[in-house]
Amino acid sequence: MTARADRPSLGSLICPRSIAVLGASPDFQKINGRPLKHLLEKGYAGSLYPVNPKYERIADLPCYRSMEAIPDRVDLAIVALPASQVISAIRDLGSKGVPAAIVFSSGFGETGHEGRKLEAELVGEAKRAGVRLCGPNCLGLINAFDRVIATFSQYASGETPPGPIGFVTQSGAFGTAIAALARMRGNALGYFINTGNEADVTFAEVMRYVLDDPRIRIGAGYIEGLKDHGAFAALAEHALSLAKPLVVTKVGRTGAGARAVASHTGSLAGSDEAFEAMVKRHGIVRARNEEEMLDVVEVLSACALPGGNGLGLVTQSGGAGVLMADRAEALGLRVPVPGDGTRRALQAVIPQFGSAGNPVDVTGQFVAQPELLRESVRILLADPQLHVGIVWLQLMHGYVDSLIRIFTEIKSSTSKPVVVAWVAAPEKGVAALKALGIPVLRGAEPAVDAVAALVQYAEARRRWVADRSEHREPTSQLP
Amino acid sequence: MTARADRPSLGSLICPRSIAVLGASPDFQKINGRPLKHLLEKGYAGSLYPVNPKYERIADLPCYRSMEAIPDRVDLAIVALPASQVISAIRDLGSKGVPAAIVFSSGFGETGHEGRKLEAELVGEAKRAGVRLCGPNCLGLINAFDRVIATFSQYASGETPPGPIGFVTQSGAFGTAIAALARMRGNALGYFINTGNEADVTFAEVMRYVLDDPRIRIGAGYIEGLKDHGAFAALAEHALSLAKPLVVTKVGRTGAGARAVASHTGSLAGSDEAFEAMVKRHGIVRARNEEEMLDVVEVLSACALPGGNGLGLVTQSGGAGVLMADRAEALGLRVPVPGDGTRRALQAVIPQFGSAGNPVDVTGQFVAQPELLRESVRILLADPQLHVGIVWLQLMHGYVDSLIRIFTEIKSSTSKPVVVAWVAAPEKGVAALKALGIPVLRGAEPAVDAVAALVQYAEARRRWVADRSEHREPTSQLP
Repeated sequence: MTARADRPSLGSLICPRSIAVLGASPDFQKINGRPLKHLLEKGYAGSLYPVNPKYERIADLPCYRSMEAIPDRVDLAIVALPASQVISAIRDLGSKGVPAAIVFSSGFGETGHEGRKLEAELVGEAKRAGVRLCGPNCLGLINAFDRVIATFSQYASGETPPGPIGFVTQSGAFGTAIAALARMRGNALGYFINTGNEADVTFAEVMRYVLDDPRIRIGAGYIEGLKDHGAFAALAEHALSLAKPLVVTKVGRTGAGARAVASHTGSLAGSDEAFEAMVKRHGIVRARNEEEMLDVVEVLSACALPGGNGLGLVTQSGGAGVLMADRAEALGLRVPVPGDGTRRALQAVIPQFGSAGNPVDVTGQFVAQPELLRESVRILLADPQLHVGIVWLQLMHGYVDSLIRIFTEIKSSTSKPVVVAWVAAPEKGVAALKALGIPVLRGAEPAVDAVAALVQYAEARRRWVADRSEHREPTSQLP
Repeated sequence: MTARADRPSLGSLICPRSIAVLGASPDFQKINGRPLKHLLEKGYAGSLYPVNPKYERIADLPCYRSMEAIPDRVDLAIVALPASQVISAIRDLGSKGVPAAIVFSSGFGETGHEGRKLEAELVGEAKRAGVRLCGPNCLGLINAFDRVIATFSQYASGETPPGPIGFVTQSGAFGTAIAALARMRGNALGYFINTGNEADVTFAEVMRYVLDDPRIRIGAGYIEGLKDHGAFAALAEHALSLAKPLVVTKVGRTGAGARAVASHTGSLAGSDEAFEAMVKRHGIVRARNEEEMLDVVEVLSACALPGGNGLGLVTQSGGAGVLMADRAEALGLRVPVPGDGTRRALQAVIPQFGSAGNPVDVTGQFVAQPELLRESVRILLADPQLHVGIVWLQLMHGYVDSLIRIFTEIKSSTSKPVVVAWVAAPEKGVAALKALGIPVLRGAEPAVDAVAALVQYAEARRRWVADRSEHREPTSQLP
C-alpha cells in the first residue's frame, strides 16, 4: 500500500468524526473508562458511542450492546477488551464498516511465541475486515486540535493544549513521560500518538500524516525498532521537502538495550550503525535522550535556520562562557574571535573587567547597565562570521522586567537566531522569553547541544535544496 | 607553607568570630552593602564592624573611620573597595593584626598586563602584612553552619540552610548558578566558597579545610585552571583517606575554552589530558557540567558504596529500561541477566505482559498492585550479581502515597543502594523519597550517569584501601 492510499483511513484514525469505545466502563479511573472521561471533559465535538452489553447508559450517553447496534457511521473504534476478544471485535468493526481501530490490549507480540501467533491472526483479520489498526499494546493517541483524546495515558489527565509539535512514540509509558515533560516546559503537542506493537500502522506512516498538517512545524519521535528502514528514509526525505525537522530518540544501541527492546514491543532494535547512517544521510536530528529531544525541538521550532556554524556567546559569567566554548568546539561549532571592527565596538561598551572577545562576558555590571547585554548581542551578531547566538544568564529574580525589555529589543534587532541558557531562572522570565519566540534552556551545555542540532539541520536542509536545484538545472535549460 | 601551617588563618577566613567590612554601604542593594545585610538578617553570631569614613552608623551598628579605629580583634575583613585602594587597605589589616581578607574587587590579574602587575603587588603586600587573602575578583564565601554570609552573591538572597555538601568554585557567577540550582533541588551546601583569581588562597587549600569538617560528607568543585597540580593531587588523596568523594567540573578542554579561561580569572586552563590523568589516578569524580555535578553529588552523598558494577533496573516503561541499559553498557556498567532463581521469583510476581529479565518492567499494573514494584526491587537486588538498583517512574501524581510507602519498605529491605529516576515527578514524591535518603533524579540517563560515578568512586576507594593494606602488611608482620 502506498502512503497516499493509506491517507483516508489514517484520517479516520487521527481525525475521527465519531468514536466508539468497545468495552467502555462507567468507572472513569479505569483504562476502559478514561478515554470517555477525557473525550467528554475536554469537549470532543464528534459523536461518542460507548459499547458494552453490561450497561444501558454511561455518563448520559446511551451505551450499545454491540457495534452492530450503533445506528450511525463510526470512524474510529477504541478497543479496550481482553486480548482474547480483540479478533472477533475487529471482525465486527469490519462488518460495520469502521475504517480504523486503536487496540489498547496487551498480550500480543510483546509476550513471546503464543502472543506473536495471536498478533499475526489479528493482522490477518484486520486486513480482511478493511480496518487500519493502531497497536496493539498501545496507549492510543491525542489529536489536540480536535480534542480527540483516544488514550488512557496519564498525560491526558492534565491540560493538553494544541501546539506545533507532532509527537509519535513507539513506547507508551516512556512517551507519556516525554509528553508530560514537554507540557511542564510549555512545549505544546499538537499530536501525541503511541503506535505500540505496530502490527499494522507504523511510526513512519503516522508521522508522515502528522507532518502534512500545516499546523505542525516539527516532528518528534521516540523509536525502539524499525521494521522498514526504506519507509523511514522516505519519511525523512518528505520531512526535508516540507522543511519540517524530524527529531528522534532511538534506543537499543547496545546488547543489553537490544535485549530489552525485544521483550518490550516485540520488535528488533536493528543495527544502530545502519540507523545512524540513515540519520546522517536524510537530515534526521537524533537526540540522545528525552531532555535533549525536547531541547532540540524547542530550539528548532522557534528559530530561523542559521547560515553557518559560527557561534557567538554572551554571558554574565566567564565560567559559563568557557563551558560553552568547550562544548561548542567538541560538537563542531566554531567560536571565532570576532573581527577588529566588532572587537572595537564591543570594547566601547564592555567594562574593563569583562571580556570583549567571544565569549563576551558582560559581568555583573549588567545589573547597573542593562543596555550592556543588548549592545553586546547586537554587536556580536552583526559580525558576518557569526550565525547564531547564545546568551547565558543565572538567577536574576530581581531583574526580570529589564531582561524582558532587553530581549524584546534584541529580538527586533537581529534576524539571526538567539537562544538563552538560563540557570535557576525565575519562571516569569522563562515564560516571557518563550512568548517572544526565544527558546530558553536550563543550562550552558543543553543550549550548545541544541544549537549544534539547529546548525546541523540547517546544513542538511541546505544540502537538500542544493541537490534539488542541481537536478533541476537541466530542466530549466530546456526551451 | 604546608597545609597544616595554613590552618589558623583559613579558620579566620572561613569561621571568623568577628568581621569588618571595608567600604561598607548602608545601601543594602549594593555589592558593598549586601554582606552586612545578609550577616544581620541571617543571624551571624560574631561581631560586625562596618568601616567607612562617610558614615557614623550603618543599620544600628557603629561605623568606623578606619580599621585602626576598631577597638577589638577582627578575624576577617571583607574588602569592598576600588582596586586602587586595596593594597593600602591590606597594609592596614596587617597593622591591625587581621589574619584574613576577602577581596571582592575586580581589576587585577583578569584584566591583562597592568592588572597582573597590581595583583603581584597585592600578593607581596599580603605576605608582608601576614594576611591570608581570598580573591581578588571573587564573590566571597558562605559558611552556612555559622551563618557567615561574607558574599555579595545572588545565591545569598534566598535560604542558605547548612548541609553535608562543601562547594568551592573558582568562578563567582557560575558558582552562584550552581549553588542556586543545588538549592532548587534541595541539596544543601554547608560551604559556598568562591576563590576568584586565587592570588593567595587556592581551591585545594579551602577544599581541604572544608572536607576536614566532620559535618561535610562530600566536596563539589568548579575549576577553570590549577596552578599547582601536586597540591590538587594531595587534596584528592586526602579526600580518599577521609572517604569523602571529591566531585569536580573542570572547563577549558578546547582551544576556545582555554582562551576564554585566560580572560576570565587570568589563569591557564592547563593540559586537559594531564588533569584527566590525575582524575583517574586519585579517585576524583569528574562531572561534565553543573547538572551532572549535582546529580553525582546527590547520589554519592546519599548512597552506600556498591560492591561492584552490576546494575539492576526496574521500570514501569520498557522504553526507559532500554535507554538505561544502553547508557549503562556505554559507561562500563553491567546489566546482567539475573540468575535462574531470581528469574523464577520475578516471574511469580510480574504480570505476563511485563518483562522479568533485567530491566524488569512492572508495567502500568503497578497501579493496581503496588507491591509488584517492591517485590521486583527486593528480588532483583537479592541477586548476588547485582550491586545497585535504579527504579524508573513517570508522573504518578495520583499514587504518591503508595510510592512513599513502597520505597520506605524497599529502603528497609536492602542494604544495596537504590536510586530513583522519576520523569515529570510530583514534588511531594521527590521530597519524601529524598527525606528517606533515596536520591531522585530527573530522568533515565542522569540516573545511570550518576550511578556510574558512584560505582567508579567505590572502585577508587577500594583500590585506595587495598593499596594501603598492602603497604601496611610488612609493618603488621613486625613483632
